[in-house]
Amino acid sequence: MAASSLDSHGLSQPSYSLRRINRPFTTEYRIYFEQQENTTKNDTDSPIVKNSVPISPFHDIPLYHDMEKGILNMVVEIPRWSQAKFEISRSKSLNPIIQDQLDGELRFVKNCFPYKGYIWNYGALPQTWEDPSHFMHDPAGSTGRTRGDNDPLDAIEISPKSIIPTGSVKTVKPLGILCLVDSGETDWKVVVIDVHNPLAEKLDDIDDVELHFPGLLDATRDWFRWYKVPDGNEPNEFAFGGRFLDANYANKIIKECSDAWERLVSGRAEKGDVSIENTTLKDTPGKLDPDEIDLPPGEDLSPAPIEPEVFDGWVFLDKDSSQLGYSRGSLLGQPASLCINLDVEK
Amino acid sequence: MAASSLDSHGLSQPSYSLRRINRPFTTEYRIYFEQQENTTKNDTDSPIVKNSVPISPFHDIPLYHDMEKGILNMVVEIPRWSQAKFEISRSKSLNPIIQDQLDGELRFVKNCFPYKGYIWNYGALPQTWEDPSHFMHDPAGSTGRTRGDNDPLDAIEISPKSIIPTGSVKTVKPLGILCLVDSGETDWKVVVIDVHNPLAEKLDDIDDVELHFPGLLDATRDWFRWYKVPDGNEPNEFAFGGRFLDANYANKIIKECSDAWERLVSGRAEKGDVSIENTTLKDTPGKLDPDEIDLPPGEDLSPAPIEPEVFDGWVFLDKDSSQLGYSRGSLLGQPASLCINLDVEK
Repeated sequence: MAASSLDSHGLSQPSYSLRRINRPFTTEYRIYFEQQENTTKNDTDSPIVKNSVPISPFHDIPLYHDMEKGILNMVVEIPRWSQAKFEISRSKSLNPIIQDQLDGELRFVKNCFPYKGYIWNYGALPQTWEDPSHFMHDPAGSTGRTRGDNDPLDAIEISPKSIIPTGSVKTVKPLGILCLVDSGETDWKVVVIDVHNPLAEKLDDIDDVELHFPGLLDATRDWFRWYKVPDGNEPNEFAFGGRFLDANYANKIIKECSDAWERLVSGRAEKGDVSIENTTLKDTPGKLDPDEIDLPPGEDLSPAPIEPEVFDGWVFLDKDSSQLGYSRGSLLGQPASLCINLDVEK
Repeated sequence: MAASSLDSHGLSQPSYSLRRINRPFTTEYRIYFEQQENTTKNDTDSPIVKNSVPISPFHDIPLYHDMEKGILNMVVEIPRWSQAKFEISRSKSLNPIIQDQLDGELRFVKNCFPYKGYIWNYGALPQTWEDPSHFMHDPAGSTGRTRGDNDPLDAIEISPKSIIPTGSVKTVKPLGILCLVDSGETDWKVVVIDVHNPLAEKLDDIDDVELHFPGLLDATRDWFRWYKVPDGNEPNEFAFGGRFLDANYANKIIKECSDAWERLVSGRAEKGDVSIENTTLKDTPGKLDPDEIDLPPGEDLSPAPIEPEVFDGWVFLDKDSSQLGYSRGSLLGQPASLCINLDVEK
């Protein structure tokens, strides 16, 4: 159990810190997670001695922050309005946050009009796994034969006032879920809100989101449908007719992915390229001795320079066109300006 | 005529510079414009001697950059995705750019979901004036009895790749126009594009905008309808049923506002609180001797600190509600979070 203290909501807050290595916006950038172990000495005049233990944000941060209240932990990867596709690495030891690559290039999501970057704080639920060998629970049958995408469950945190930095661990409650189907893989997106947001107490289910944040759900579906098109992909599709499912359904999916993660980390599931190394889960095959982990010292380097047009540009998409059969090759690798109107490319 | 040089488009480019006084994000912040007068000495080894003359961006920058080609100058006040409401002061001598105030507070436009700040580069066309004593040209009669808003014509510059800094003077071509009616005042918004944008040659009229930037016009109308609602205003309305009128119509309005400005600056129109002081327009009542203008020295100060929630927050609006009769008082002065759902306030 992490060292913790009670916050104003009576929730115990584990204390995590980050160790950044190399420059942001490079392929070598890593954000490792560490957990503080506070050792208070009896002599109250002495400072608290903190001991940092490296952990995996995928495996060592508990999914349930307060299981009785249904409150979860979320690891934020991408702050609202930003574009760099930071994500928990599933294959590197201790699963640091890295910047995703596409065809060897660092991945920055385009600003697909009318959206500026990601429109929520985006991240993952720790200790969950979308098992690629597992066909998802689907009473309606509408996910067809899609399977898990081999990553932790994705979550979108919708607090409208907070931009949450990469690597933050937030206590959130689930409100609903959307079933994105991306290249034949099930890619659930859990809608959550930080319980410390003053509005959180008014939000308990997906209908409350539409009531208090009108337009957000439609925009979210629209965002996910189109965001990979500038990279040359077809628009994404959705199961359940694109409907957002309710909090109850979200909790069922979370439970399934929690169970899948338990099979993964205990060695009962085929792990493939997933690193299951961790430092806190006793009797698991991936358990490491923290004293034998030798991470480089943390740095706080300025980001590498990036072409201004990566950040400054809009991409316009012809969303109403019935002729979206443009070829991947015709768009791939071309500057964003060429995607402004897809008709121009055909 | 300004000192100028030919750019790659064969357009002569006057050389303007800015003199910033006081800290940005304070009520004392001023951006004055100066025009460079280059004096090249015969001795080519000598540096070019530059002499800066203070000018008014309202009166001293020519409207037409190339009248034959229909190319205009635009003074950019607000860069895309930013929120501070910078504008040419109509009443201060030499019309510096200042930050607008609302009820004594510096004005920052809210991020009305799904938009982040202004969605284009926003500014004004110099040497134009929406005469408040003048009822606008309107063959359809649909602007009713609205009159000019006493400011230069507003323009939105739609280059999707460029964020243009406050105070920039750009050469643009008009593509169309929208007739916003704001509190009973006609407030035209001219749609323009920087002629140096590679796409500009494909854009000649308003239909080209919809073709190449699908969704932009609808979003623009939506943006203008709602952007003042978080400050306690009713949604804005539009003449002509909210239709964007074509480039031909835009040019007619521009010509009318150019004529109105000529009446203003020549003393033939009642100027009210508008400062018509200038330094380059001979035989006008507001002509100043540049040598007698004593501007403080320019500074380059960091912006004053602003509450993070000004920049970090979304405001959600209940756009579909048929019951928008909320009172100004119920919203005015309340933090943005309370505007998230207007139903909550009623």
